[in-house]
Amino acid sequence: MGRNDDGDIIEHHVEEEMEKKGPRSHAAPSSLQESGSPSDRGGPGSGTQSSHRLLAYSDALLSIIATVMILPVAHTKVHDDEELRESVQLLLTTKIAVYLMTFLIVTVAWAAHIRLFQVIVRIDDCLALLNLACMMLITFLPYTFSLMATFPDNILGILLFCGCVMVNGVIQSVIVLYAFSRPFLLNEQIQISENQTFYKNHILKVIMRVPIMCFFASIASLIVFQLSYALLAIIIFLPYISQSLKWCRNKAIGQVEETPDSMMFYTYLPNEPLSKDRVEAFSDGVYAIVATLLILDICEDNVPDPTVVEKEFGGNLVFALQVYGPEYLAYFGSFATVGLLWFVHHSLFLHVTKATRFMGLLNTFSLAFVGGLPLAYQLTHEFPRNSQNELEAIQISCVIIFFAGIFQLAIWVVALYNEQETLHPYVRYGGREHVFMLAKLALYPCVALVTFFLTCILSKFSTSIFHLMEITVPVAFLVLRLLVRVGLALLRLIFCPDRPDLRRVVEEEDETRVPFNPLVT
Amino acid sequence: MGRNDDGDIIEHHVEEEMEKKGPRSHAAPSSLQESGSPSDRGGPGSGTQSSHRLLAYSDALLSIIATVMILPVAHTKVHDDEELRESVQLLLTTKIAVYLMTFLIVTVAWAAHIRLFQVIVRIDDCLALLNLACMMLITFLPYTFSLMATFPDNILGILLFCGCVMVNGVIQSVIVLYAFSRPFLLNEQIQISENQTFYKNHILKVIMRVPIMCFFASIASLIVFQLSYALLAIIIFLPYISQSLKWCRNKAIGQVEETPDSMMFYTYLPNEPLSKDRVEAFSDGVYAIVATLLILDICEDNVPDPTVVEKEFGGNLVFALQVYGPEYLAYFGSFATVGLLWFVHHSLFLHVTKATRFMGLLNTFSLAFVGGLPLAYQLTHEFPRNSQNELEAIQISCVIIFFAGIFQLAIWVVALYNEQETLHPYVRYGGREHVFMLAKLALYPCVALVTFFLTCILSKFSTSIFHLMEITVPVAFLVLRLLVRVGLALLRLIFCPDRPDLRRVVEEEDETRVPFNPLVT
Repeated sequence: MGRNDDGDIIEHHVEEEMEKKGPRSHAAPSSLQESGSPSDRGGPGSGTQSSHRLLAYSDALLSIIATVMILPVAHTKVHDDEELRESVQLLLTTKIAVYLMTFLIVTVAWAAHIRLFQVIVRIDDCLALLNLACMMLITFLPYTFSLMATFPDNILGILLFCGCVMVNGVIQSVIVLYAFSRPFLLNEQIQISENQTFYKNHILKVIMRVPIMCFFASIASLIVFQLSYALLAIIIFLPYISQSLKWCRNKAIGQVEETPDSMMFYTYLPNEPLSKDRVEAFSDGVYAIVATLLILDICEDNVPDPTVVEKEFGGNLVFALQVYGPEYLAYFGSFATVGLLWFVHHSLFLHVTKATRFMGLLNTFSLAFVGGLPLAYQLTHEFPRNSQNELEAIQISCVIIFFAGIFQLAIWVVALYNEQETLHPYVRYGGREHVFMLAKLALYPCVALVTFFLTCILSKFSTSIFHLMEITVPVAFLVLRLLVRVGLALLRLIFCPDRPDLRRVVEEEDETRVPFNPLVT
Repeated sequence: MGRNDDGDIIEHHVEEEMEKKGPRSHAAPSSLQESGSPSDRGGPGSGTQSSHRLLAYSDALLSIIATVMILPVAHTKVHDDEELRESVQLLLTTKIAVYLMTFLIVTVAWAAHIRLFQVIVRIDDCLALLNLACMMLITFLPYTFSLMATFPDNILGILLFCGCVMVNGVIQSVIVLYAFSRPFLLNEQIQISENQTFYKNHILKVIMRVPIMCFFASIASLIVFQLSYALLAIIIFLPYISQSLKWCRNKAIGQVEETPDSMMFYTYLPNEPLSKDRVEAFSDGVYAIVATLLILDICEDNVPDPTVVEKEFGGNLVFALQVYGPEYLAYFGSFATVGLLWFVHHSLFLHVTKATRFMGLLNTFSLAFVGGLPLAYQLTHEFPRNSQNELEAIQISCVIIFFAGIFQLAIWVVALYNEQETLHPYVRYGGREHVFMLAKLALYPCVALVTFFLTCILSKFSTSIFHLMEITVPVAFLVLRLLVRVGLALLRLIFCPDRPDLRRVVEEEDETRVPFNPLVT
């Protein structure tokens, strides 16, 4: 890419600018036939393009990579004769840790990617290719974690990880430098700003912070390798810790008027929220890959060998497949649960108008638990009936469902704190859909909690209780609107049966705020 | 869901209609703070929602399921001592057939899903849940194909497949009936039409056609099971065959003015093209899952056992990992190739304004070959150097890359046939970006072809040639714009060196059609 090419692209842009006024007008007749509206996707003219699809593809890649480390966890063989407790201990120490580490680091990388492409809003071919190189490096990170977990004393894993992050940082810096040399690729706010150099340096500083820490970590690993783990932990968790602390402080001593400097410590643009579209796209990817994880295994492993069927089952395929019955059940159970959790997430984000970073953080935690669901469901159906292992597997499933649901509920609670900014008027406190949304979000945590305690008390019937839950929850979602109505009517009947005027107002459902707030709280 | 609930939701809708005029106005001040524009995503008010995210999630699920059956193919163990030819024969007969069947049936289901949700443009909770049930059934289809392939004489696979399709048909019919009972969920074209009942019956007829054929196939399987396979093949391939025939006929005897009836044989709405957004979303999903397929395996399988490292490599992790060197190389190679093919696809669809059904079909074929790439790359690096197997694996890789690329090129050629309708003016024949786009699309097929023939001639250096290709192609994409310019300048210099006025016109790049057409053709 010599100077020739540089001039070339800028020339192209100037042309494009001219074209926007010129030939677009004579292209108008044909655009009437066009089904979509290509204009809002960015002019497909010369060098520059809208970044929309690049971001969608990056989200898909990142969501797959975030959840991929659950596979080694799920494929760990648990023998019937072992106590689950032991094997869970084994899982917890390494594989689940690797899964969670991967999930968190990928979401950190994803958040950084969002920030970067909030600054760079248009792309050209060169940026698209550089972004693909970044993606390739990020998809390699889970493997370095596996190495670290398997060989904690060996520094190779750390060095590989640091190497990937550093190269990634360099590529991202190149992306930033490239974009700032072609300002028409940038966010309008920066494009019209006089301080472009300040922005550029600031963004480069933020980007290079992590690679530089990794550089020190890799040097530290050569001397005392334990130190480098501490440094890595700081790198991974710093954004999370600082966000949580900030949020807690704000809630404790009230909203502090933040200086632009502190605001921009982790963001490039002041007041830029997390992109809601990308949170949705990333979540969709995670939910989709998690929902299908078990069918991947089933398609590969649960087709019996023809010779085995002939010998052991007398050629009767139905009998042979009955062995795999629990796997099918686990698949349908986990698909339904993940699908319904997606449904709740979908409903929630329909009502959210702006996703703050703290809501994004809670969403990440929720997704991390969702990733564990297929594993939990698989365990549930893997042990002999009424064994201690089975009971514990069912209880673990309940705990995972509970946390996946409760973090979704937490997103909603956090959103309610700033409801003027983050929620649609309909679902704000006292709004018409408020109670219904609350019911949707509370359904899974409540059901999981009830199932958990029921299995504790009636441990003999734990499987039946669990299956009953699997069947009733989808039905409950279908009739939830009806249930909420009946519940509210009952509440009213119990607490204020003497105020028929109030009830009539509710039944007429006029646009005033519905007066069930005093009842619910 | 009694009558109560019905009345309930309609009531809600009426409210919503009223609200649109009413309280929205006093909500306006707060909506100024909102970052996104929630209005274009559908009012998140009461019952109804925009279907946007539901479709994105469905696309993600379907694209994962479409590509999942490549995993059993990829995991087939090929021993070094066997001839690849034999094992390829084995693969071809069952697993690859299952993969292609799955891919095609899922894309058929996906096309039906697009058609359905072009009619139903808004959803409510009930439709979202019914759609999830459909998805669950579709994700189970690959497993029925596995059963059919492993036990061709057993009718269980066929019965399971037909059962899934029939239940799916019933759920889709329920979706249609539900949507038509709440006309505000429908496409505006139908909403304002007086012929709603006609549309409803027509759509139900189209939807039920496949389940009814499956019903006959399942009955036939009870008598002569070979017949049911024929019926299934017709079900799967009929849309493809009829589309191809129609297109060939149109090209042979000219565009026939179609009667509305024949138009609507496979579509619900006249003149409704394939949704371009959904083609992009589905393709993104396939490219993303295929790009990461190998890292999934690497993360799970290629972490050496600590005891083995201690015993066999004297605790030296680097030596232990060198064994896996070929796997890493295969990963980076396949990720880069898939990523670049995505990049070409992305560039192509930036310039496409409308995707016809035939273009969608070619896209499906291209994606089906892309799905085979990780497998081909894995084979490439699995055999000892300079063996016959390695040579064949490299040639298979070239063939797969060639077909994946050539079908992308075919999309472009087909689009050029109706360029007024399907392409942006910039890239139409003679447009400013035409040659550059052509170069992008032709790069991979040409490189694959050249590599293939070079490996035939210089079979001793096949690996080096292949690695060279892997490295040069990304670089070639980076400097492609420059290369095209140089190439065009050379062409001009050779064919018309005596017309400097012409060259100057080109260099000035004005908006008249650039006169290199007579040169290139």
